[in-house]
Amino acid sequence: MKSGRGPFLVEVFLENAKIRRWRMLHQPEDKILEDQFVLETIPLGQLGEGQVHVKTLFISLDPYLARMMQKWQGERPGWSEGIVHGRIIAEVIESRSPLFSPGDHVWTVGRWQEQDIFEASELERTDTAPLPPQTALGVLGRSGITAWVGLHLAEPRPGETLLVSAATGPVGSVAGQLARIAGCHVVGTAGGPQKCRHAVERLGFAACIDRHSADFETELAAAVPNGIDILFENVGGPSLDPALKLMNLGGRIMLCGLAAHYNSEAPLVLTNFKELLYRKINLRGFVTADYPELFGQALQELRAGLSADTIRYDETIIDGIEQAPASYLAMLQGAGIGKRLVRVTPA
Amino acid sequence: MKSGRGPFLVEVFLENAKIRRWRMLHQPEDKILEDQFVLETIPLGQLGEGQVHVKTLFISLDPYLARMMQKWQGERPGWSEGIVHGRIIAEVIESRSPLFSPGDHVWTVGRWQEQDIFEASELERTDTAPLPPQTALGVLGRSGITAWVGLHLAEPRPGETLLVSAATGPVGSVAGQLARIAGCHVVGTAGGPQKCRHAVERLGFAACIDRHSADFETELAAAVPNGIDILFENVGGPSLDPALKLMNLGGRIMLCGLAAHYNSEAPLVLTNFKELLYRKINLRGFVTADYPELFGQALQELRAGLSADTIRYDETIIDGIEQAPASYLAMLQGAGIGKRLVRVTPA
Repeated sequence: MKSGRGPFLVEVFLENAKIRRWRMLHQPEDKILEDQFVLETIPLGQLGEGQVHVKTLFISLDPYLARMMQKWQGERPGWSEGIVHGRIIAEVIESRSPLFSPGDHVWTVGRWQEQDIFEASELERTDTAPLPPQTALGVLGRSGITAWVGLHLAEPRPGETLLVSAATGPVGSVAGQLARIAGCHVVGTAGGPQKCRHAVERLGFAACIDRHSADFETELAAAVPNGIDILFENVGGPSLDPALKLMNLGGRIMLCGLAAHYNSEAPLVLTNFKELLYRKINLRGFVTADYPELFGQALQELRAGLSADTIRYDETIIDGIEQAPASYLAMLQGAGIGKRLVRVTPA
Repeated sequence: MKSGRGPFLVEVFLENAKIRRWRMLHQPEDKILEDQFVLETIPLGQLGEGQVHVKTLFISLDPYLARMMQKWQGERPGWSEGIVHGRIIAEVIESRSPLFSPGDHVWTVGRWQEQDIFEASELERTDTAPLPPQTALGVLGRSGITAWVGLHLAEPRPGETLLVSAATGPVGSVAGQLARIAGCHVVGTAGGPQKCRHAVERLGFAACIDRHSADFETELAAAVPNGIDILFENVGGPSLDPALKLMNLGGRIMLCGLAAHYNSEAPLVLTNFKELLYRKINLRGFVTADYPELFGQALQELRAGLSADTIRYDETIIDGIEQAPASYLAMLQGAGIGKRLVRVTPA
């Protein structure tokens, strides 16, 4: 692949460029399945005035996308044709905007596509140094900021017990570590012994309970001897329901994600729903985008924690754009530790 | 029945008195059933120093009691033997405490029993004049105060839409009227056309939708053209689930009661639970007893509203202590309008 520098060369390059992108062939009737996706080869088109030509470096695999895949509705109009979009990090190849230069790293919501052309206004420059650029999708991006904002809204106090589900995920891992820094007794739940060891040994959680364990509820109760003050919920029913019985009076539930349910229209069945009343719980659904005024402080504290090694972050990288749908669906099933990313072109 | 005045007469009277009370014979395995209750005749016992002998006037039929009937655990230790207790209004017959005199009306949590003996410290004098004493169980008691506290915590603003379930119940009817006074567009849901007419014509709701209607969801959506800002929930799943799809972003749910679920261990099945996240809902379970500092203001405003006829209250009275369990179970099924009371001795 050539990466031209002059305007003339670039235009020729673009007119002939064939690049691959993911589209959905039909809308899921029930679950999202791998065979609903097709990797198309399309011409890229021509770079216009004020536009920027980028090479996609990393695609972020986020649970919330499942809802858009289900409905073909999302942050970009192309969803109505089944063209898959998500958060990406890209590198500028050529720019016809004074705002960007070749080599810049940018963040946007873009197609799952090898290269693309954006209006300059659609791009945000990222600055993650000394960390690699893809951390703008994870610990220094929406995942880390979501953890920070959710914990901030929960108002944790030292000595309180916080339970976080999907404890080794990109949000849960950071939320738990921030709570630990805030002086909380932090317990996680995660799928499998490997993740649980990771949460304790690498992330410094007091305990992490394997939700596949036959004695899950007993083990969870034992890990929160003073009850749960804050539940940071990323998963949904399978995690929320047993936790409700362990909540303290007046406890807070930060409803951050429902990863177990995005790819399903099945109702939630909650045996312990009544505890929300009996235990006088405050349950709050929140969406990070509503709190832009907090992002600056969040990033500052996340950077400080990373620099001091009080916050650790992990990535699971899958190589090759052709892996994106399968890797995405595996993520919904719980695969991987930390931020799950597709590296579009293998290193 | 004699009601002695002198201490000597009273002691004779008490030693020989046989009074009736309700006890449960066995704990429900699943649902509470009428044949689990027995109306026993027992001796009353002797009035000791500092004690007060009362005649029960009204028994309050409150949904929350079902939980105590299920578990044989409650506000009074006698529950462990299946002796049914609930909120009552009684009249003092004889007092060996300087705090109470014959003829006083008192409120307490007491046995479902024709007469009883209490420590003076267990009783609260009621003052409902010019309204009748049983309003201390309803609009001027826990029901009305709960409506006021719940609405206060919801912070209604003029022009907002409030949906209240069990709209003609003792809490819902008052909550809706207070919201109307606060300038909200108030919509109720209730079981049956009679209740719905009542909510609109007598209570001044903008609309009330019959939850048994075949087109319930469509009618509900039409009644809240600007969406729901506040859901005041008294019922549970059957009311909450369809409302979730109509909530506005950032809406508030005051979880006040779960009348549909107290007599059932079945899980709640919520098709629209995910909307709590998507619509960034703040759901809050609250228990009125936690806000004693608000009771004074609540009662003052309720009295003022009753006096100005901006708040109306209703009672459904069932005559005869022998009717208590059947009337209670009928209430759980939705029978009656307004506060549902058993008048222990028919007028």
